[in-house]
Amino acid sequence: MRKQKPVSESFVRMTELVLPNDTNTLNNLMGGRMMHLMDVAAAISAQRHSNRIVVTASVDNVSFREGIKLGSVVTLEAQVTRSFSSSMEVHIDVWAEDIPSGTKIKSNEAFFTFVAVDQSGRPIDVPEAVPETAAESRLYDDALRRRQLRLVLAGRLKPQEATELKALFELD
Amino acid sequence: MRKQKPVSESFVRMTELVLPNDTNTLNNLMGGRMMHLMDVAAAISAQRHSNRIVVTASVDNVSFREGIKLGSVVTLEAQVTRSFSSSMEVHIDVWAEDIPSGTKIKSNEAFFTFVAVDQSGRPIDVPEAVPETAAESRLYDDALRRRQLRLVLAGRLKPQEATELKALFELD
Amino acid sequence: MRKQKPVSESFVRMTELVLPNDTNTLNNLMGGRMMHLMDVAAAISAQRHSNRIVVTASVDNVSFREGIKLGSVVTLEAQVTRSFSSSMEVHIDVWAEDIPSGTKIKSNEAFFTFVAVDQSGRPIDVPEAVPETAAESRLYDDALRRRQLRLVLAGRLKPQEATELKALFELD
Amino acid sequence: MRKQKPVSESFVRMTELVLPNDTNTLNNLMGGRMMHLMDVAAAISAQRHSNRIVVTASVDNVSFREGIKLGSVVTLEAQVTRSFSSSMEVHIDVWAEDIPSGTKIKSNEAFFTFVAVDQSGRPIDVPEAVPETAAESRLYDDALRRRQLRLVLAGRLKPQEATELKALFELD
Amino acid sequence: MRKQKPVSESFVRMTELVLPNDTNTLNNLMGGRMMHLMDVAAAISAQRHSNRIVVTASVDNVSFREGIKLGSVVTLEAQVTRSFSSSMEVHIDVWAEDIPSGTKIKSNEAFFTFVAVDQSGRPIDVPEAVPETAAESRLYDDALRRRQLRLVLAGRLKPQEATELKALFELD
Amino acid sequence: MRKQKPVSESFVRMTELVLPNDTNTLNNLMGGRMMHLMDVAAAISAQRHSNRIVVTASVDNVSFREGIKLGSVVTLEAQVTRSFSSSMEVHIDVWAEDIPSGTKIKSNEAFFTFVAVDQSGRPIDVPEAVPETAAESRLYDDALRRRQLRLVLAGRLKPQEATELKALFELD
Repeated sequence: MRKQKPVSESFVRMTELVLPNDTNTLNNLMGGRMMHLMDVAAAISAQRHSNRIVVTASVDNVSFREGIKLGSVVTLEAQVTRSFSSSMEVHIDVWAEDIPSGTKIKSNEAFFTFVAVDQSGRPIDVPEAVPETAAESRLYDDALRRRQLRLVLAGRLKPQEATELKALFELD
Repeated sequence: MRKQKPVSESFVRMTELVLPNDTNTLNNLMGGRMMHLMDVAAAISAQRHSNRIVVTASVDNVSFREGIKLGSVVTLEAQVTRSFSSSMEVHIDVWAEDIPSGTKIKSNEAFFTFVAVDQSGRPIDVPEAVPETAAESRLYDDALRRRQLRLVLAGRLKPQEATELKALFELD
Repeated sequence: MRKQKPVSESFVRMTELVLPNDTNTLNNLMGGRMMHLMDVAAAISAQRHSNRIVVTASVDNVSFREGIKLGSVVTLEAQVTRSFSSSMEVHIDVWAEDIPSGTKIKSNEAFFTFVAVDQSGRPIDVPEAVPETAAESRLYDDALRRRQLRLVLAGRLKPQEATELKALFELD
Repeated sequence: MRKQKPVSESFVRMTELVLPNDTNTLNNLMGGRMMHLMDVAAAISAQRHSNRIVVTASVDNVSFREGIKLGSVVTLEAQVTRSFSSSMEVHIDVWAEDIPSGTKIKSNEAFFTFVAVDQSGRPIDVPEAVPETAAESRLYDDALRRRQLRLVLAGRLKPQEATELKALFELD
Repeated sequence: MRKQKPVSESFVRMTELVLPNDTNTLNNLMGGRMMHLMDVAAAISAQRHSNRIVVTASVDNVSFREGIKLGSVVTLEAQVTRSFSSSMEVHIDVWAEDIPSGTKIKSNEAFFTFVAVDQSGRPIDVPEAVPETAAESRLYDDALRRRQLRLVLAGRLKPQEATELKALFELD
Repeated sequence: MRKQKPVSESFVRMTELVLPNDTNTLNNLMGGRMMHLMDVAAAISAQRHSNRIVVTASVDNVSFREGIKLGSVVTLEAQVTRSFSSSMEVHIDVWAEDIPSGTKIKSNEAFFTFVAVDQSGRPIDVPEAVPETAAESRLYDDALRRRQLRLVLAGRLKPQEATELKALFELD
């Protein structure tokens, strides 16, 4: 039987300062730099779950809201939601904190998927990810639907066969 | 009337060498670094179309295939597909080239959306993006469906109202 | 009366991946890079306590034990221990985590001192830092002795006048 | 008998320009970046003395005075003061130079300790460091006291046994 | 017989955004950063021609005109002009593009020479570079004279023996 | 009368460690990174001579010999040779030092030219550079010929009018 591991053991919190080279000409954090940080935080989370080298397999749709100013503090929290043989979905929450005002706002949220690999780069099975809280269970359950969307968007599943996903678009 | 501009004027080609700090412990380019490069190439494309500062609004689902080795050459090609008042969708193609063997393979493909802003960061209208070739027209037409998916995923459009998208999931 | 703030509100956890450029020719994290990370984590902590720009005023003696390998995960936890008018002492704990084995060992511990400044760089008073747990109280109490040592080492206090410190060196 | 080498052969001068990413929101060099530079300069000095790979063993108390502005020139001078079997103490002086005014002020001073290691990371003996000038001799002599302080602070020597150090705190 | 390859197969276009750390205190791209970009673009071009690791052998005189502002887009185009046993001359054109005004001006032009090497760093023959257009033929023909100048400047050819070069300095 | 300043006051020594990201796939320092370092060292030297912001105006032919290994120590020494109204020629010597063997070899030599500018970027006169030693005088005298070559190569002087240069190519 596959090893089991609570999802909370993969929790990662990363804190970063927005530096000049991270910003555009409006002095706001660039989207690409933000995604780089998300990828590092999420990869560490997937490594903690699998105790393996991991490679990024996909990034779900990410949207960016308010600009984050130079000198702000960015906090990223990442945790595995569910695993599928050699792959793991990781959920990432991002907050931006403005030091003078002390305000901290939710900036982004994203799902990244990683594959655990051995030293020659071949996929290798990972422990089963076990949710323990209500919030973890919801993320665990919805992981199936997000996975179908990824497969449809990658052209590896016909939309008509994406049962979980289809339900979303039906009126009754 | 809104200014018109052929999408081809926004074409950008970017070439990068994979350096040690861009790689994971398997000596492959990290996904986050790849997304950083995509964001820069796509932002330059959106800037060329709008002659404005642009900010990343969203990134569509990206999937990663083969690892790209340290020392490889990565080529990114970005071009605006369509504009919507102040926003522009940009299509990015990525190739990885292995120098000793001379092989060049398609590595990734992605859609990023940017918003043009003025000096105080407020959205500002951009020229209409005009497709000229058959391939450009196909990207232009499908931009509507991708936009609906983005709105649905961001919780700003009900799935049942996403007409273009719904069609995909229906059997006949 | 001076504003009071629990020290726990300044808690910061930072997680970093050891990348190639962070390492020496033995593939171990360089000491200077580690201190750079400590300074960033501690500065964010002092900024959270003071809601001000802060500048590094001093770093206490730091010792380095085991080497930390390329690809390891470094976790830094920083928290203000005590404040003195415009300055704050911050305690930093560092752990190194080896992913394949899942082992996490304590790597370093340090005390950094920061001064809060206004926009023109002049020192400005910060809230009083209030310890709440036994561990926080111990760090708070010992802060006086560490401060005397700093002043003695900076030549700003005569050793004979460093009452707290002298006690250490007396036999009975 | 152990090989002898004049301390002056380990002299290193390093000159750096303060770039945007090195600075905080007041446009001053960040303390962590300064310590990173100190570590590199001091490590090169210890490498010159030992002709070996070296690892940072400890950093003595460092204090920071005036802010160093963006665009300033930072000069670091490092030289081994004394060696103890496999370890070397290095003294570092830092100056900040403001180009428009042509003023150059002493900014910092620090002592770093390095251990020479072989290819598998095991400590290995280094040449004896021989002072030749009066200033070099003073640094050589005081190295013992600094070493005792390091051992006391690292909890590896009881304060009461630190003879050299105790003398400092006694009135007569 | 030596393999032949059209020079156009080595064409590289690289696009870069000028970031804060690339600039001096006037917010203009630093010359050293520009040369770094030129070297990367030219090296990729020489690698494409030779399918080998290449090392920079020399850089011809480069002059810099107008400053390039922070936030500008820099485009580099590199192409092999001619090969000589194991070495290749690469021509690089650089443009600077100001986004708000949409102006794009020629900024620099340079010639870099690379040597193809095998895995142990020994020079190895490369394909013959074949020009196909009139502009490529002119660059091909003039490569001989530039090569003589390089050899004279490196002290490896007597000025009086540099026949191609001498012609330049004669009145009739 | 124009202010005079000994060339030796502009002397700069810079020491750098070759890090992973500075190297190509043979683990040798890349040419572009070397030129970046040369530009920084030379710019600091020109700033010291002029007490002004300086911009790179041109780089003379540079040739690269032996590869410099990862982990090596690179030492750059830069000094102004001569000034012409607002421009300064700077001579740079580069050494590469291999730590285990203790060998230090001359790696490169180059001449960079800088222009001093005021806050709005306009050229501004600099002090006259006065040579004091025989070696400094030789560099001072030959500066004229190098300047003519630069002007000829930039197309700003006809070869036939470059008197100093012509002499080189004549047999008697």
